[in-house]
Amino acid sequence: MEQSTLRENEVSASLPSGGDAHLHFIGTVRTPWQSRGDAPRQGDINGPLCTIEVFDHWDLALKGIEKYRTLEILYWLHESRRDIVLQSPANNGEVHGTFSIRSPVRPNPIATSIVQVVSITGNRILVRGMDCIDGTPLLDIKPERSLVLPIAPPKGVHPMDVE
Amino acid sequence: MEQSTLRENEVSASLPSGGDAHLHFIGTVRTPWQSRGDAPRQGDINGPLCTIEVFDHWDLALKGIEKYRTLEILYWLHESRRDIVLQSPANNGEVHGTFSIRSPVRPNPIATSIVQVVSITGNRILVRGMDCIDGTPLLDIKPERSLVLPIAPPKGVHPMDVE
Repeated sequence: MEQSTLRENEVSASLPSGGDAHLHFIGTVRTPWQSRGDAPRQGDINGPLCTIEVFDHWDLALKGIEKYRTLEILYWLHESRRDIVLQSPANNGEVHGTFSIRSPVRPNPIATSIVQVVSITGNRILVRGMDCIDGTPLLDIKPERSLVLPIAPPKGVHPMDVE
Repeated sequence: MEQSTLRENEVSASLPSGGDAHLHFIGTVRTPWQSRGDAPRQGDINGPLCTIEVFDHWDLALKGIEKYRTLEILYWLHESRRDIVLQSPANNGEVHGTFSIRSPVRPNPIATSIVQVVSITGNRILVRGMDCIDGTPLLDIKPERSLVLPIAPPKGVHPMDVE
């Protein structure tokens, strides 16, 4: 839990007990930060080295990733409270809608970071740019969006439409 | 399912039956595309208008979002197969590791798009830049990362450290 009690003017919602879909953790993020109090609030591509560790049964899925120096990493902020709709990060009575800030407290605490790749050894990717605590569950790795063109042929384009 | 049978050289993995965490859908993405065959492979900020609809019980969480013209949208590609580690989007026998491409087929089929806000009416955000089919479940809305500074004070900085 990010915090156990609501701050001034904060508002929580009741979450349904079940879930609509489930996630499979695919690895672990290793960082120098052992607690949320130590972790920075945003990643810095000049920050310390961190390791993206992919579980062995997904290592084939890394084939070709060495082509990219910039990756988008998705991870699960497992310690975050999920039920707060209006929150006060500065704890000063001023509240912000959860979707108007990048706080870890959100209904689906999925963080995204853009990282710079330093090296790749087997299923371990050494990067800079992470901001989470050591041991954070990994959800996904994608090439940064501006670096890729889709491999599959465009959809909805018929040969006769092409000059 | 994205495809019912493996293509040449594709490799699948066995997924665990349970999940490690669960998601709550927070809304629905409305687009002009009714099937995956119609949808573009990447969003285009000059593309057609789409609507990000947030469920009523999360509408307070939109407070303040009007400050941002560029948002990061996370959504759940509910029709995607999740077990393929090596895949061949071009179906030509050449395979790519799932984490080296931005294919919708991945163990956690979470897509991220950067969209331009056109207007906001209640809990409906009109945007350009989406690429998914109509009815796709919404997971999260965040201000685009380059636009925000954390509101909470920096962690790990003590008053005596500040000049």
